[in-house]
Amino acid sequence: MGTTIRKVSVLGTGVLGAQIAYQVAYSGFEVVAYDIDQQALSTARERFERLSHTYQAEVPGADDVRTSAASRWLRLTDDLADAAKDADLIIEAIPERLDLKRETFAKLNELAPASTIFATNSSTLLPSAMADSTGRPDKFLALHFANRVWQFNTAEVMGTERTDPAVTEELTAFAGAIGMIPIVVHKEKAGYVLNSLLVPLLNSALTLAAGGYAGVEDIDRTWRIATGAPLGPLQIYDVIGLMTPYNILAYGSDGDRELAAWLKTNYIDQNKLGVSSGEGFYKYA
Amino acid sequence: MGTTIRKVSVLGTGVLGAQIAYQVAYSGFEVVAYDIDQQALSTARERFERLSHTYQAEVPGADDVRTSAASRWLRLTDDLADAAKDADLIIEAIPERLDLKRETFAKLNELAPASTIFATNSSTLLPSAMADSTGRPDKFLALHFANRVWQFNTAEVMGTERTDPAVTEELTAFAGAIGMIPIVVHKEKAGYVLNSLLVPLLNSALTLAAGGYAGVEDIDRTWRIATGAPLGPLQIYDVIGLMTPYNILAYGSDGDRELAAWLKTNYIDQNKLGVSSGEGFYKYA
Repeated sequence: MGTTIRKVSVLGTGVLGAQIAYQVAYSGFEVVAYDIDQQALSTARERFERLSHTYQAEVPGADDVRTSAASRWLRLTDDLADAAKDADLIIEAIPERLDLKRETFAKLNELAPASTIFATNSSTLLPSAMADSTGRPDKFLALHFANRVWQFNTAEVMGTERTDPAVTEELTAFAGAIGMIPIVVHKEKAGYVLNSLLVPLLNSALTLAAGGYAGVEDIDRTWRIATGAPLGPLQIYDVIGLMTPYNILAYGSDGDRELAAWLKTNYIDQNKLGVSSGEGFYKYA
Repeated sequence: MGTTIRKVSVLGTGVLGAQIAYQVAYSGFEVVAYDIDQQALSTARERFERLSHTYQAEVPGADDVRTSAASRWLRLTDDLADAAKDADLIIEAIPERLDLKRETFAKLNELAPASTIFATNSSTLLPSAMADSTGRPDKFLALHFANRVWQFNTAEVMGTERTDPAVTEELTAFAGAIGMIPIVVHKEKAGYVLNSLLVPLLNSALTLAAGGYAGVEDIDRTWRIATGAPLGPLQIYDVIGLMTPYNILAYGSDGDRELAAWLKTNYIDQNKLGVSSGEGFYKYA
């Protein structure tokens, strides 16, 4: 399957937005990375620089020639009109606030050609909650990436009931063309496929640990032995970082809030946030 | 940690009971394998014979000398008094019926020395539901093995509130001495550690597939890419076999029963039972 997409704009240059923009440029597409001001763009430049080193270290075949080409394909702007004006596809990766996303899509609808496809990378909001704000619900869907896109290379493609199936197909082809394994989600589902699978496992592991049923290492060891997986669920928490799951649990059911409180007392308050802080459920050198 | 256990009796020579008896004998303990009549013992003999070939093929260091030794350490009987009379430890692996288990433990209490430790391998019943029937609740706990004990070598050690901590320690040491990784479950928990983790993942995968959210292969692929695990959840179903999860779901909540109905129509009724029947979610050669 080929894709007719050539020019891609990515809105938001946070951790994942920068990775998406870089991966698309690395795959030979013309990319405009947008963020709100020059300070944000300055941070983005540093992210892209670090990504080029990371790719050289971790991605097979990523030599200096290829990362230099990626940098040439990548342009930064803080002008939304500039980002929108001739994009075939705009991928939104701005903060997870529905009002902000809706407002941004409404502006984009004024600024972008009628043919431009809009995609949201939102992890926690359903695309149907923003579809009308795009002014083009038939050309709008979710395209959801996982952190460290070059390694965890799934791209979940999830339309709403109003998305044109041809647009879903186009983005499935595009996902393949940027080195992702497209995972088509046929009906809207909070958490897509990956988090629908992962969250129940992680919550169960947390329930065992917080309830004092078993030790952290025994929980992970059991999982590794039984499934052959390289990491147990509490090791996965450490890789993800404890703050995001904590913030989600803190607004959940009574049971979720108990788990959040346990996480806070035993880990968050002690700055044990996972691999990134040097310690979470385990210590890291 | 050493163990003072020398003589072990295993009650029940079904798939898992036979594996437990063989693994204990293979580890150099004197084992009596008990089943109800000569026909059951004849089947047991065949199981042990097959296990000796499996061990030679799959267990590092398992040569003819070692499997022959295992066979010498293993004695079969259909006389419960014979199995009970001088065992240091009796592991119960009979059918999952509470009345049958309670009745058996009551008989054993008459037949075995007062010092004998009793353990249940039950997957679905809590040890506290049988503790009083043993006449020795302080010397009674669950010791839970996983199918293919030589490969998935966790032994979950779970006492009740009445189990003597020294007995839990003794069985933890014993588990290590028979080549298992002991996983101590500090408080009673249905599903122990492994099934508490695995069942939510498997149910989530089934919910995605049955609900038409994503295809079987995409669900498994997402999991493998994201976690590095060798098998996705629907591949794990195929290995376990679909009948056991089906039987559990069929007696569960409304949502569980819907999943069971979907499994029945699409798989069970078509004899797609997993790897063992040649086809489940996937086809096998």
